[in-house]
Amino acid sequence: MLAALGPDIVTLAQEADGRRFADWSGIPSGDVLALIRPRSTEELSQAMAICHAAGQPVTVQGGLTGLAGGASALDGEIAVSLERMKAIEEVDAVSATMTVQAGCVLQSVQEAALAAGYFFPLDLGARGSCTIGGVLATNAGGNRVIKYGMTRDLVLGVEAVLADGRVISGLHKMLKNNSGYDLKNLLIGSEGTLGIITRVVLRLRPRPLGVSTAWCGLDDFKAVTTLLRRAQSELAGGVSAFEVMWPSYYDYVLGNFPELRRPLAGSHGFYVLLETDGADPEAQGEQFEAFLARMFEEEVLEDAAVAMSERAALDFWAVRDAPGEFPRLIPNMIAFDISFAVSDLAEAASRITQGLEARHPGSLALVYGHLGDGNIHLIADVPGATAETVEAVEAFVYGVVSDLGGSVSAEHGIGLKKRKVLSRTRTPDELATMSAIKQALDPRGILGRGRILG
Amino acid sequence: MLAALGPDIVTLAQEADGRRFADWSGIPSGDVLALIRPRSTEELSQAMAICHAAGQPVTVQGGLTGLAGGASALDGEIAVSLERMKAIEEVDAVSATMTVQAGCVLQSVQEAALAAGYFFPLDLGARGSCTIGGVLATNAGGNRVIKYGMTRDLVLGVEAVLADGRVISGLHKMLKNNSGYDLKNLLIGSEGTLGIITRVVLRLRPRPLGVSTAWCGLDDFKAVTTLLRRAQSELAGGVSAFEVMWPSYYDYVLGNFPELRRPLAGSHGFYVLLETDGADPEAQGEQFEAFLARMFEEEVLEDAAVAMSERAALDFWAVRDAPGEFPRLIPNMIAFDISFAVSDLAEAASRITQGLEARHPGSLALVYGHLGDGNIHLIADVPGATAETVEAVEAFVYGVVSDLGGSVSAEHGIGLKKRKVLSRTRTPDELATMSAIKQALDPRGILGRGRILG
Ligand SMILES: Cc1cc2nc3c(=O)[nH]c(=O)nc-3n(C[C@H](O)[C@H](O)[C@H](O)COP(=O)(O)OP(=O)(O)OC[C@H]3O[C@@H](n4cnc5c(N)ncnc54)[C@H](O)[C@@H]3O)c2cc1C
Ligand SMILES: Cc1cc2nc3c(=O)[nH]c(=O)nc-3n(C[C@H](O)[C@H](O)[C@H](O)COP(=O)(O)OP(=O)(O)OC[C@H]3O[C@@H](n4cnc5c(N)ncnc54)[C@H](O)[C@@H]3O)c2cc1C
Repeated sequence: MLAALGPDIVTLAQEADGRRFADWSGIPSGDVLALIRPRSTEELSQAMAICHAAGQPVTVQGGLTGLAGGASALDGEIAVSLERMKAIEEVDAVSATMTVQAGCVLQSVQEAALAAGYFFPLDLGARGSCTIGGVLATNAGGNRVIKYGMTRDLVLGVEAVLADGRVISGLHKMLKNNSGYDLKNLLIGSEGTLGIITRVVLRLRPRPLGVSTAWCGLDDFKAVTTLLRRAQSELAGGVSAFEVMWPSYYDYVLGNFPELRRPLAGSHGFYVLLETDGADPEAQGEQFEAFLARMFEEEVLEDAAVAMSERAALDFWAVRDAPGEFPRLIPNMIAFDISFAVSDLAEAASRITQGLEARHPGSLALVYGHLGDGNIHLIADVPGATAETVEAVEAFVYGVVSDLGGSVSAEHGIGLKKRKVLSRTRTPDELATMSAIKQALDPRGILGRGRILG
Repeated sequence: MLAALGPDIVTLAQEADGRRFADWSGIPSGDVLALIRPRSTEELSQAMAICHAAGQPVTVQGGLTGLAGGASALDGEIAVSLERMKAIEEVDAVSATMTVQAGCVLQSVQEAALAAGYFFPLDLGARGSCTIGGVLATNAGGNRVIKYGMTRDLVLGVEAVLADGRVISGLHKMLKNNSGYDLKNLLIGSEGTLGIITRVVLRLRPRPLGVSTAWCGLDDFKAVTTLLRRAQSELAGGVSAFEVMWPSYYDYVLGNFPELRRPLAGSHGFYVLLETDGADPEAQGEQFEAFLARMFEEEVLEDAAVAMSERAALDFWAVRDAPGEFPRLIPNMIAFDISFAVSDLAEAASRITQGLEARHPGSLALVYGHLGDGNIHLIADVPGATAETVEAVEAFVYGVVSDLGGSVSAEHGIGLKKRKVLSRTRTPDELATMSAIKQALDPRGILGRGRILG
């Protein structure tokens, strides 16, 4: 079979030494059989037909920044990398679309959009490495979801190679296309288990001409949700970020990162990084300050600081982005990426933090997240934790998620890492339906074996 | 089998006389076996388990306003109506969500949203009859897609009964939920062929406090796309409607509806109804006029009229909404609901109108539509047309759609009406994949038999 695949196969022992085959999840790679690096959809299609015929398991790899282990190649698998398919094929300025190959890195897309006078709003810390194929496969989120949506909301068309080599060619540029089942949205978020995304039509948005940013201190959760609702209805450009931090997070970060500037002098029950973007920087700035003044008068806000420069806005964001350094500071951290109805968030956070404290006194529990999306991140650290402790913490947290009807994965996906907990928020009938779809599209089960449905 | 279904079965001959079993498509209903009107998801689940066991075909019916024949019940089918499941179960003002049963009429949802201080942006002419289940099943669009998206963009969670009675319960309220395959989006737009939608969590949006509307006259298509791009980037609240009318449409409508007010004195190459909505009516109104003045100075606009009252805005919309009366005026009209990349629209429209004139001299071809979405409506009328003429016109128009990579159905869906032309813009591999999914979810093929995949 390897011979049939032809010269694009790199047998690992010989040529791929030093190459990493594991993603950021911490799940190590196994003894990988080979690496395929197709130069075109056709080459990939042929290779998959051969793998399908041979029942050869395949794992797709993008930038390997995934956090769920979906891209870590396991024993006996062939790794497929789209690194030779990274062209930006077209920017259609009239239709406001960009057509790219799936191996294209997110940051290149962002830059090409700006160069064309547009904006591609998806943004995450991994922008310099993650690929368009990877962000589609994981339906990545990031900070601007509240205004611009998840990855799926930014995609108009998808071309993909199925497990048996057939090609789904849906490279449409239309916002509206009600012609049969939505294969595009089925592929998006399927983490490499239903098809290999090869080309994508992205939807570009107008470039915001001005961004206004404030750091807010509030007394209680009701004030936080009031601020969200009022900002969404009263700010002309809408809300482009609404990042909430619980005091545990805020105090920990300011205590442990001496280089960070303290946004507000006092202490508050909650902190919010509020951002709006829009078309008219001047009018928007005035409206933004007037809005904050109103919220202050109406006692929704206890305090707020408006960023008067881009530098000052970056300082605010640095406080929010500190978790990039957590793995260094909290080597044994247990990280959660969960979501709830907005109205359940306060309850969820307090059940979790109080429950952890009761079960593991002295443990750390930092809560922060994208409130408008219902998405919170939880970082837990239990001194002296064993593997059993970690398991107990996960069981407890996912129990709360399940009780409140939340999701075990808001953004990062299931992959290998969370397949055991997927049943916490998906019923047996839902899982059986997903398996039936997997079976229909990949009857020999060669794509991303054991991922999601394990 | 009918006996097993129990007292909720109305055998037609006895009790359902006078009841309509066909939708608005013109496709007549057949000799329907029975009508099921469940009061709950459980009742429906039990009924479907019985139908599945018996291999009994079932057609789901909402408000019967669909235009593709998907809801017209055929010979030997059981009709399932959700008319007893129309409750608004919850408005969660903190999470900005509404949970409704699928039989709820769209207008009731719109009104409940307003009563809660929110806005449900989906709007179509059929609002007083169409149901939430129907708009999800057809992924309906309407006038506000450009800003707020299609139905699928307004839905957070879906509960559905599968063909065999199993229940997919995904009534989540979260914007972010990356836990397995996207069953929600697969059900949305599946026109009653993959599952029966029973309950839905809708996403509410902030209520716009002001709406600004203008009628614009432009010289050429380049000016139209420039206006769109500039409006999207320069109007603070974005563009909430961008309806384009070709002169053929404009002249026909003003000539045939004497009660309509002429928005502009002169004649132009294109007409655009432009609307923005937002949070600050006063500032927005000023910005809107300043924007139009800029467009006039830069010679993008030839002329424009701003609606100074709600009444004046309604007058503009009346010109755009005249097609509601076309069936009366043009009884043999051949209607198309097609989409293209925005950059292909001018070419598409001129190929179609010129081609029709060359093939059928003296025929009528009215073109108008939601330009920002790439969606145009075409109304053709060929004097003395026979069934063959209609077929020839359809073959020609769908040929242009196919050549330019457009879609044969932007909004209304495939149903029974367009299943023959689906292959014009979907490849055999795409169709085979859809069939595999259908087979996986409804192995006995009892739901919406012959719809979409025919
Ligand atoms: C520093 C950092 C910050 C992050 N921030 C965020 C964040 O804010 N929000 C968020 O949602 N995520 C975040 N992530 C995780 C996010 O999932 C990844 O960054 C990104 O989406 C994965 O892209 P990738 O190309 O690296 O994919 P990989 O890691 O290579 O793969 C991810 C999954 O997608 C599959 N896949 C990859 N390419 C394809 C393809 N072409 N076709 C089909 N399947 C494919 C793989 O099999 C795997 O299952 C972050 C990660 C890091 C390291
Ligand atoms: C005057 C008028 C204006 C319109 N304007 C627009 C417009 O602007 N944009 C647009 O997109 N459409 C428009 N439409 C068509 C649009 O498809 C329907 O109005 C609406 O979406 C159908 O809802 P309904 O409840 O009437 O569904 P029905 O007509 O009863 O059914 C439509 C399809 O959905 C299925 N279905 C119904 N309920 C369910 C359920 N609970 N679960 C699963 N499947 C179900 C049916 O089987 C059928 O295939 C218009 C129609 C009319 C008559």
